[in-house]
Amino acid sequence: MYQLRPIGIVHSLFKRREDVPTRGPIQYEAIGEIEIFKEYEDGLKDIDGFSHIVVLWIFHQSKGYELLVEPLAYKGLRGVFATGHPDRPNPIGLTVVKLICRDKNVLRVKGIDMADRSPVVDIKPYVYSYVRKDIRLGWIETAERR
Amino acid sequence: MYQLRPIGIVHSLFKRREDVPTRGPIQYEAIGEIEIFKEYEDGLKDIDGFSHIVVLWIFHQSKGYELLVEPLAYKGLRGVFATGHPDRPNPIGLTVVKLICRDKNVLRVKGIDMADRSPVVDIKPYVYSYVRKDIRLGWIETAERR
Repeated sequence: MYQLRPIGIVHSLFKRREDVPTRGPIQYEAIGEIEIFKEYEDGLKDIDGFSHIVVLWIFHQSKGYELLVEPLAYKGLRGVFATGHPDRPNPIGLTVVKLICRDKNVLRVKGIDMADRSPVVDIKPYVYSYVRKDIRLGWIETAERR
Repeated sequence: MYQLRPIGIVHSLFKRREDVPTRGPIQYEAIGEIEIFKEYEDGLKDIDGFSHIVVLWIFHQSKGYELLVEPLAYKGLRGVFATGHPDRPNPIGLTVVKLICRDKNVLRVKGIDMADRSPVVDIKPYVYSYVRKDIRLGWIETAERR
């Protein structure tokens, strides 16, 4: 077992995970803040030069998991690792956001899809090895909207 | 604090983290396997249709962290969250790989940059919201190679 300690918290317009849009442009447009706790602020040095960052965070409202889940936006049961479902063996969320600006320990970002007060566990710069082209989306391409 | 339980393990040609190429095409070409433990195999249903997946894993050789670190490939001290350095407050690694094929609980993938036997904690499908264009890479664009 490995222990994760929160290094910050998300400030979002979406109060609960049910409020987060599951598809469409809104998810790329929502503006919010990633507050990194003061004790970790020095770790943000040099982050300002990156246009995008990756935020790893906790689905803190998650209670347990199933290996087959019904995605929030689509009909049908899918393997949990083929979805972004919040209830997963390790409830870690991954969001790529645009970095608008930094004010000391607070990052103002665009593309928030977390619920308010989600704990943040890591920030990484978005780098070329995360960019892929010609992607195929499996079941999502043919699934029926819920 | 949150607990992470390993759901699988990486099989890689790179025995230690020092053996992993820090830059260049090799990091996109290395083939390896992500073995998901049998008890989680059902969670892989439907994964086959995705061209790429995101692997979250643990830098298991990491011992503690500093907020300012010298990147493995470049000179100079940087904020740890502006780098992919293994020694970070929560030593989670993030790798995007191409999914070649699946054999039951084993995913054969291209783009391995983990050390052998790194614990895997999550698999996610690589989706459009992870694709960004017009990215800026901050200090990396001007830094001197070590």
